[in-house]
Amino acid sequence: METKQKDGRISVVTGILEANDRVADENRRMFANTGTCVIDLIGSPGAGKTALLEATLPALAGAARVGVIAGDIETTLDAERISVFDVPVVQTTTGAFGGACHLEASTVRQAADQLGMDGLNLVFIENVGNLVCPAEFDIGQGARVVVLSVTEGEDKPLKYPLAFRTADFVVINKTDLLPHLDLDMAVLRRNLGQVNPRLKWAEISARTRDGLDTWIAWIRERMGNSKRHTTN
Amino acid sequence: METKQKDGRISVVTGILEANDRVADENRRMFANTGTCVIDLIGSPGAGKTALLEATLPALAGAARVGVIAGDIETTLDAERISVFDVPVVQTTTGAFGGACHLEASTVRQAADQLGMDGLNLVFIENVGNLVCPAEFDIGQGARVVVLSVTEGEDKPLKYPLAFRTADFVVINKTDLLPHLDLDMAVLRRNLGQVNPRLKWAEISARTRDGLDTWIAWIRERMGNSKRHTTN
Repeated sequence: METKQKDGRISVVTGILEANDRVADENRRMFANTGTCVIDLIGSPGAGKTALLEATLPALAGAARVGVIAGDIETTLDAERISVFDVPVVQTTTGAFGGACHLEASTVRQAADQLGMDGLNLVFIENVGNLVCPAEFDIGQGARVVVLSVTEGEDKPLKYPLAFRTADFVVINKTDLLPHLDLDMAVLRRNLGQVNPRLKWAEISARTRDGLDTWIAWIRERMGNSKRHTTN
Repeated sequence: METKQKDGRISVVTGILEANDRVADENRRMFANTGTCVIDLIGSPGAGKTALLEATLPALAGAARVGVIAGDIETTLDAERISVFDVPVVQTTTGAFGGACHLEASTVRQAADQLGMDGLNLVFIENVGNLVCPAEFDIGQGARVVVLSVTEGEDKPLKYPLAFRTADFVVINKTDLLPHLDLDMAVLRRNLGQVNPRLKWAEISARTRDGLDTWIAWIRERMGNSKRHTTN
């Protein structure tokens, strides 16, 4: 996303973001009405967002009525991977919009309408693979989760701070590869805390399912907070 | 980068791209005048762009007068890693522009002026870690190289096609991790050829230096093509 560059662009960009924020607020009210916990998953291409869902959906079977919105520039590959699970899934591609690098609130609105939020108490939105632009756009999510692969290196929280500052939780993925990397986990943890002292995270391998418990417990806590408050 | 969305935005975005293209053309003429081969390195966060330079610079020692422009949103970490080699390096950060997700031709112009292209016959520009937006912006490069880590999966050429369609070469990095991944290299190669049949690539490990020869040979060929053609 092009932001705050020279002169005339500033007002255009501000206008785009304000219009997006209005729709995001409407989305958030809609999700509150249906009592749906909506989690925006962002991360670099290949960080393992879809793999995380493949590990998470079976772990939540019976405990939640889950839906998935998969965002990509091109292809329906992610929705195909999710469709083997018994959950409703909508693929939205930004290719028709020139290959937009992030989901916007209006795109999410359309996908949510197609998915049907009523009756779902948990919806994952897999954003376009990009650690920069999705962080700039509120889509009305209840929580934002950054998926970060250990293969990406210790320095990513410092180099892409907005994603980590606006995140509620980080899933550090692919820990099964740690024995084969030079990564220093202590430095990565320190960098996360430096960018966002309130940040919680789980260290997992979506592939081996190792460490999933912390992540699942966090989801269940968020779902509890999102429950529709009826007055009877 | 926000592109071709609804109504009024289209003309604004087109204007931004056209203004960028004009400066990119000027950059290209400047690089032709100094006989400098300029390579734009793009790839996801953590694909190994800086590690590739750390492996490449020693391999070119004595064979080229090399400079580096390192682009990031925040930090000078990449320039610090490059500065241990005996090459001039300029770090440019987009944080002052709201954390722009790509380098623009005007940013590259400023960095090139600071670096001083005259006397350099090879300059690497390490773009912001992002597989989407940098592909949309011509910066006047002589060649574009996508760095793709095998940890990112086979499907990335299909999901981020513009980067691979506009690339002259792909460095498939981190092959030392292949024994520990489920990746099918034959599928990755097929997907690269499907998106861009003219594409050449090298399969390397920047960490172990394995497979560097194909990459170095390609650079030397490009450098030969970029030589200043004098008329004496």
